Amino acid sequence: MPGPVQSIERAAAILRLLAQGSGRLGLSEIANSLGLARGTAHGILRTLQLVGFVEQDDATGKYQLGAALLHLGTSYLDVNELRSRAINWADALAARSGEAVRIGTHLQGKVLVVHHVFRPDDSLQTLDVGVLLPMHATAIGKVLLAYDANAAAAAQDSELEQFSRRTIRTPKELARALSGVREVGWAADVDEIAMGEAGVAAPIRGYGGLVVGAMGISGSADRICDAAGRPRGELVSYVRDAARAVSRDLGAARW
Amino acid sequence: MPGPVQSIERAAAILRLLAQGSGRLGLSEIANSLGLARGTAHGILRTLQLVGFVEQDDATGKYQLGAALLHLGTSYLDVNELRSRAINWADALAARSGEAVRIGTHLQGKVLVVHHVFRPDDSLQTLDVGVLLPMHATAIGKVLLAYDANAAAAAQDSELEQFSRRTIRTPKELARALSGVREVGWAADVDEIAMGEAGVAAPIRGYGGLVVGAMGISGSADRICDAAGRPRGELVSYVRDAARAVSRDLGAARW
Repeated sequence: MPGPVQSIERAAAILRLLAQGSGRLGLSEIANSLGLARGTAHGILRTLQLVGFVEQDDATGKYQLGAALLHLGTSYLDVNELRSRAINWADALAARSGEAVRIGTHLQGKVLVVHHVFRPDDSLQTLDVGVLLPMHATAIGKVLLAYDANAAAAAQDSELEQFSRRTIRTPKELARALSGVREVGWAADVDEIAMGEAGVAAPIRGYGGLVVGAMGISGSADRICDAAGRPRGELVSYVRDAARAVSRDLGAARW
Repeated sequence: MPGPVQSIERAAAILRLLAQGSGRLGLSEIANSLGLARGTAHGILRTLQLVGFVEQDDATGKYQLGAALLHLGTSYLDVNELRSRAINWADALAARSGEAVRIGTHLQGKVLVVHHVFRPDDSLQTLDVGVLLPMHATAIGKVLLAYDANAAAAAQDSELEQFSRRTIRTPKELARALSGVREVGWAADVDEIAMGEAGVAAPIRGYGGLVVGAMGISGSADRICDAAGRPRGELVSYVRDAARAVSRDLGAARW
């Protein structure tokens, strides 16, 4: 079997690079970051520009991601079966729990949010679809780490970034948390991604029982947790019921 | 100067193909559609899979767009200056007009929606961000055709798809409509994308006065139009004021 096509791998690396930080980079910065000759980087960038994946700012000459990617990203959502099966259940979960609902899947050691239902009140909220969340600091991420072998492998060597003083700090602590998740079948985060924020999530299984994503609520710890600082039992049930319903729709056996 | 990198162009063509229709295609369908040898198509697909731009369904072996594209698409929105400058003005326009607001830019002969504010009521609405709209049947599209030379060139040979019996049918009719747009400085669509739907849009200009996008309202023709079936004057003013405000923020000269 032939190896991967090098120029496509390099093009993807450039796009990933442009998706980080400020999002605008000059030719030299791009070439240096990826260890490419300027001419090579330039040829790839010109082609990416031609196909609309990259745009060049007229004034500064810097490169940034292009409009064609937005349409491809939206088209991904249209064919994403996890999302299409989950939309109604996510709406119902938001209504029942009174909290924001997110559905996530694994991407490159992070949680990719593929669906987001706002908390059903009039507060100002920003759409998280397409956003990457840390695995070890979110309930959704812990579910993926606990059940999705690819996710666990991808996250293995990544640093455990500290978001608050309650964020999981060490691989050992994380391993203990994940075995807890597997024991009870759901995960929580309390004050771990930010003080005062909490979440609860449960696995979504696809055909054959494989975990393909996770679904959870997130919001103020005041509302989500009881007086002892643990997620309230009925919210946990709502989340598990919803995730189970989606799993059944995706063809996982009833359990 | 070296030519474009062929394998990257081919990879982009495969992604565009997967963004159409059902979104799931087998290897032979992809190879045939693009006139590639199976082995060539397979090598590109495997690389695209490796970088997360394509996923393969385990059960059917068919290919579909991958999760990494969603994150790139969202990252595009984060660096899109048109969108970031326009967000507050779009909110204000929605509040003032009582209608949904969309901001569009040109992509491959269509309007790419880069921002969408829901109509400020409790009705069920779906987010149009990332969606492609036809140029000749929407106010936003007509503005882009009238002022954006790239958009006009890209749309030149495309068919004028009929969405209703009021959709513009012929290039001549379209040319007349566009010269009308240039004369008054704004565009409308009434019953053209669907019977009972209407829209009003105005150009957004960037640094140096070049049109970089369009901003408009859309909704029920009953609300947007007067008794004579023409867009209500105060709504037109609201749209033009908002588009002008964004243009000033983007560095266009005052006018």
